[in-house]
Amino acid sequence: FTPLPADFKDNLNKVYEAIEEADFLAIDGEFSGISDGPSVSALTNGFDTPEERYQKLKKHSMDFLLFQFGLCTFKYDHAEEKYIMKSFNFYIFPKPFNRSSPDVKFVCQSSSIDFLANQGFDFNKVFRNGIPYLNQEEERQLREQYDEKRSQANGAGSLSYISPNATKCPVTIPEDQKKFIEKVVEQIEELLKNEENESLELEPCTGFQRKLIYQTLSWKYPKGIHVETLESDKKERYIVISKVDEEERKRREQQKQAKEQEELNDAVGFSRVVHAIANSGKLVIGHNMLLDVMHTIHQFYCPLPDDLSEFKEVTSCVFPR
Amino acid sequence: FTPLPADFKDNLNKVYEAIEEADFLAIDGEFSGISDGPSVSALTNGFDTPEERYQKLKKHSMDFLLFQFGLCTFKYDHAEEKYIMKSFNFYIFPKPFNRSSPDVKFVCQSSSIDFLANQGFDFNKVFRNGIPYLNQEEERQLREQYDEKRSQANGAGSLSYISPNATKCPVTIPEDQKKFIEKVVEQIEELLKNEENESLELEPCTGFQRKLIYQTLSWKYPKGIHVETLESDKKERYIVISKVDEEERKRREQQKQAKEQEELNDAVGFSRVVHAIANSGKLVIGHNMLLDVMHTIHQFYCPLPDDLSEFKEVTSCVFPR
Repeated sequence: FTPLPADFKDNLNKVYEAIEEADFLAIDGEFSGISDGPSVSALTNGFDTPEERYQKLKKHSMDFLLFQFGLCTFKYDHAEEKYIMKSFNFYIFPKPFNRSSPDVKFVCQSSSIDFLANQGFDFNKVFRNGIPYLNQEEERQLREQYDEKRSQANGAGSLSYISPNATKCPVTIPEDQKKFIEKVVEQIEELLKNEENESLELEPCTGFQRKLIYQTLSWKYPKGIHVETLESDKKERYIVISKVDEEERKRREQQKQAKEQEELNDAVGFSRVVHAIANSGKLVIGHNMLLDVMHTIHQFYCPLPDDLSEFKEVTSCVFPR
Repeated sequence: FTPLPADFKDNLNKVYEAIEEADFLAIDGEFSGISDGPSVSALTNGFDTPEERYQKLKKHSMDFLLFQFGLCTFKYDHAEEKYIMKSFNFYIFPKPFNRSSPDVKFVCQSSSIDFLANQGFDFNKVFRNGIPYLNQEEERQLREQYDEKRSQANGAGSLSYISPNATKCPVTIPEDQKKFIEKVVEQIEELLKNEENESLELEPCTGFQRKLIYQTLSWKYPKGIHVETLESDKKERYIVISKVDEEERKRREQQKQAKEQEELNDAVGFSRVVHAIANSGKLVIGHNMLLDVMHTIHQFYCPLPDDLSEFKEVTSCVFPR
């Protein structure tokens, strides 16, 4: 079956299971192009050394996108004396995850696109519903972004229980922001006095102003309020402040962390399938497979190394057999 | 309406007519990306000189594909005191025309593709049914190819009336091809003697062998036979020889030329619309139009010139107003 982003998540466990129970796996990729230099047949030939072949493909083939990944799992049924095969077809697209995520550029080769079009390839599925992915470095960076955001909010209400001593001294507010911050503090004092209102929505403001608010509130109100940044339909960010007791605060924090973890998993996306293949240590077979292996490593693990021996090392991690 | 390749041809006259009767035109392009360097907003700014802006866009934006071209024609109706508008939406794709035509590579930017996907853009229409195009140099080269093919076949039956004196001396046949050519000549002698058969299909052979056949027959049988290369379903090329009288030969030749002209027009494809816009001399308007103008010239006319003053010159040819 062909899982698109929405049902990719729902069906990921089926994919994991199929990999886990399989005796061996087969993979096949479709790319947006083959060679950005000489024609395919002229690019490599039987006289190339493995090193030459690797260098040529690395130079002329890696700017294309692997945008469809086929996976077949094979399990031998001893009773029936036949193989049971499960096949999965993943459309892949590096949809930008947030404003700071990489805006991937990839090359298309008209002859390859035309070939796929003639085979009935569904480009709308790729570009509208393709599953995103991150390589390991991008995943690490995104994780860091989340950690940073968390530590920035740290102490300000919602996160105070992680490190309640975060900001013990007054924050330095630039002259031109003092009035703005004073007004926010007044609004919160009002909220805390008033028994009817449970929460307060601040006007949209700049990222710098949000940072000042977080720091100020972390110092002034180490407990007793929950501070959260939300985004309006118009993509404007605004802060919501609510009164909470300790228990409610922890519950909300856990909820937030779970949501962040899910977002992270969504962003890692299809790379999780490749990780599962790698971790399974199962035999992986394919036809004319060098480009498939190179693209898989390049997109879902790390930029390809400079020489063949390093490439072999990386490959033996991703596809141990 | 949105003409796809099949009805593009049928409806091209409607487009020409609309341009011809219009008081002014408006154009708008959609691209597969905006900037392959810094982010769009960082690439150019209000302090750039026109020359700087031109250089930046030329460097960072021209590897993307203009794959949708919108054209609106406006004609003032004096009786009704309102404008009558006709709008046309062309999907554009550089589908390789034949084995020697350029295999265009273009870059896609994920954020742009994602934006278009969210607007409901139909990528299948672009990649499956996009209208091809050639710039002026490519059109010239293709014309030359046709001319060369014609002059190569020249004298051999079908084309002898253009230049009946083309090959008056025997052809030099390499030693290892002599048997092959002798056998072909025998087959033709057989055909000419035999009153029942009207034509003869030769076995598929190499391009070099086909050339030798054409040259030999042009010398041996300047009239009386028609020689034609056809392609099988398996893309193998083979020669068909048929007995024809002078009148039939001329008819066939004219048919062939008309077919070639049509193929050429098909290959020039969407560029014909741009030529019509240029030739109309009509006022052309657009919004934030520099990239649209640059892409239009780059794809349908010529590679962009090195500096702004030359670009202005070219632009004043393509969009005189």
